[in-house]
Amino acid sequence: MRKIIVQKYGGSSVANTKRIESAAKRIVRYKRKGYDVVVVVSALGDTTDELLDLASRITKNPSERELDMLMSTGEQISVSLLAMAIHKLGCEAISFTGAQVGIITDAKHTKARILDINTVRIRRELKKGKVIIVAGFQGTSPDSEITTLGRGGSDTTALALAKVLKAKVCEIYTDVDGVFTADPRIVKDAVKLESISYEEMLEMASLGAQVMHSRSIEVASKFNIPIHVRSSFNNKEGTWIIKEVKAMEDVLVRGVTVNKNEAKVTICNVPDKPGLAAKIFKRLADDDINVDMIIQNVSRTGSTDMSFTVNGTDLQKTLRSARVISHDIKAKGVTHDKNIAKVSVVGVGMKSHSGVASKMFSALASKRININMISTSEIKISCVVDKKKADEAVKAIHREFKLGRR
Amino acid sequence: MRKIIVQKYGGSSVANTKRIESAAKRIVRYKRKGYDVVVVVSALGDTTDELLDLASRITKNPSERELDMLMSTGEQISVSLLAMAIHKLGCEAISFTGAQVGIITDAKHTKARILDINTVRIRRELKKGKVIIVAGFQGTSPDSEITTLGRGGSDTTALALAKVLKAKVCEIYTDVDGVFTADPRIVKDAVKLESISYEEMLEMASLGAQVMHSRSIEVASKFNIPIHVRSSFNNKEGTWIIKEVKAMEDVLVRGVTVNKNEAKVTICNVPDKPGLAAKIFKRLADDDINVDMIIQNVSRTGSTDMSFTVNGTDLQKTLRSARVISHDIKAKGVTHDKNIAKVSVVGVGMKSHSGVASKMFSALASKRININMISTSEIKISCVVDKKKADEAVKAIHREFKLGRR
Repeated sequence: MRKIIVQKYGGSSVANTKRIESAAKRIVRYKRKGYDVVVVVSALGDTTDELLDLASRITKNPSERELDMLMSTGEQISVSLLAMAIHKLGCEAISFTGAQVGIITDAKHTKARILDINTVRIRRELKKGKVIIVAGFQGTSPDSEITTLGRGGSDTTALALAKVLKAKVCEIYTDVDGVFTADPRIVKDAVKLESISYEEMLEMASLGAQVMHSRSIEVASKFNIPIHVRSSFNNKEGTWIIKEVKAMEDVLVRGVTVNKNEAKVTICNVPDKPGLAAKIFKRLADDDINVDMIIQNVSRTGSTDMSFTVNGTDLQKTLRSARVISHDIKAKGVTHDKNIAKVSVVGVGMKSHSGVASKMFSALASKRININMISTSEIKISCVVDKKKADEAVKAIHREFKLGRR
Repeated sequence: MRKIIVQKYGGSSVANTKRIESAAKRIVRYKRKGYDVVVVVSALGDTTDELLDLASRITKNPSERELDMLMSTGEQISVSLLAMAIHKLGCEAISFTGAQVGIITDAKHTKARILDINTVRIRRELKKGKVIIVAGFQGTSPDSEITTLGRGGSDTTALALAKVLKAKVCEIYTDVDGVFTADPRIVKDAVKLESISYEEMLEMASLGAQVMHSRSIEVASKFNIPIHVRSSFNNKEGTWIIKEVKAMEDVLVRGVTVNKNEAKVTICNVPDKPGLAAKIFKRLADDDINVDMIIQNVSRTGSTDMSFTVNGTDLQKTLRSARVISHDIKAKGVTHDKNIAKVSVVGVGMKSHSGVASKMFSALASKRININMISTSEIKISCVVDKKKADEAVKAIHREFKLGRR
């Protein structure tokens, strides 16, 4: 049996016909090396935004089913163009929509989850020597409705295919060279990582690194599929996302991330009664609000302030919800702050080493950056700071842990 | 059972979000009048050209299967947007791709023919009170490949649906008020026809009137489905295309058409041997060339010129083919002329009246317009003239038969 490789090309890697042709050349190269190649493609560059704009000109509340009908055309366009470009290079290729290739999802439009992939058609076409090109981000419900997988959906398609096809590797082509110790736009001497563990990448992704979406990394981690994140603009090795290996623990901190898209909400003077915290966060969860960090101080006066952070795009919804809660539990109202940023350090080495937190805090202190909230897990430490100081904080921490180029 | 109406909106009727909203209003109006409404939609205005342009930037010879994958996205975009616009007006609607709604075609990509339509899903959704919105121009082969129906495909989808759903009428919404006695851009006093027979409309369509494509009229004629061609920009009655009625014969000529997109090809000095004409036109047919008019003069010298007209877009292909044929049959080469136009009069009245031809020829003679080729059928007469004189010819004939406004 030939080795199967899954390659995923993101929107920037197929932004125009020139880039599509360059992706086609790379694919044909792998094919001629002897691989069976299965390609997952996102929509061309701005197509997604253009389609959303069309919909928004018609209605502010489009039906999610119709939104999926609309959005799924983006990937259908790119797979057919990529197939044509591969044909032109004298190589056989066939494109498929999610429905055609048998990607079965649940019926939760705009955020569907893959239930099953029927690989019969893919295997048949692979046997004929064809490159398989699959529209990412989409599938079909058992009722033949077109569904989409939500943010990062094409990565999820790629990893799910890599799993069912038992691929040797899943390559994620993007517009950066890999995963860096920090955002190179902020930290000039940030270093590209050779490898990073699933666990670390998961934390980095949810902490603001935008290379990959968490869901797909979960799939990779669960089935131990090596991911190779690399640039579609050159042939350099990128970053391998793999299972944790012993040597990784020697590195205390893998990278520094920053998320400037959070907001802090405070419910003031929450009465000090048992069960109120549970009530607050259950209500927020019921309203579909994802709470990130939570801080509650010890109460000395019979009441306390309860602060938490949410994604900036959820702020208005959260405020509406929090005001109702505040009224119900007889708190003293709601305040919020959008001028915050969450700076984090991530590394599996923390599991077996101490002193990471104090080192991070002293880096911030040396720059007189005030810490607003702190949250820790086994492999990460996050601090909320003033948004204006965020870049300075990232640089100071990156330097403190000696992550830059030597 | 409620009355079913099928409405087809062409590209100009959904060219932008404003027009989509206006189509939605019309649809909801019919729904509230008590009709079950099934809508067929073309791609938004220029989408088709934009997609073709993308493909042409990649390859001059795209695979027809991949071209169908690409082109079918155009209608998928318009159906989802139209569904959203109807929802916004408080009316239930659901959009479908050709595959979802069960439009089964053969596997001839880019020019597939509808084999069957499974109406289960449509009837189920109609029962729920929903407006059904179907992507025109597309279907699915028995192997689940996406196919398109070729030129005028959305009309064909609409008529095929009208047939299987036993609709009372199929409305074709376009950017003109109906079918005219001549192109109003050429003849100022051209008159909108109240009605026209399938037979006449078929001739008019193949003779250059661009309102509807012949294939869909054939379907309507075969199953006697009334078509109402009308404007989506106003509420005026348009033109009814119906079965021939007795009173129609009182009108000698229904309309005058012109086709400026033909070219004449001549194979010179064809030896006067039996079977050569058959050989020539069989070879052209084998090369997939549609020949329109054919002229051969009586031979006096042992050889003759054989002239025929083809669609202008097929000219290069035809010349290549004709040169090979000329060599094989020992003729004396091939000439061609693109500066021709075919002017025709159409009317079922001709069946029972004579003198139409002589009236047409004398109208041309009075303007000193030379007739190059003549071709007649039971209900039409066509003359090939110099392209520069074509508009003048149309005007003269229109006047001769007194077709203008009184």
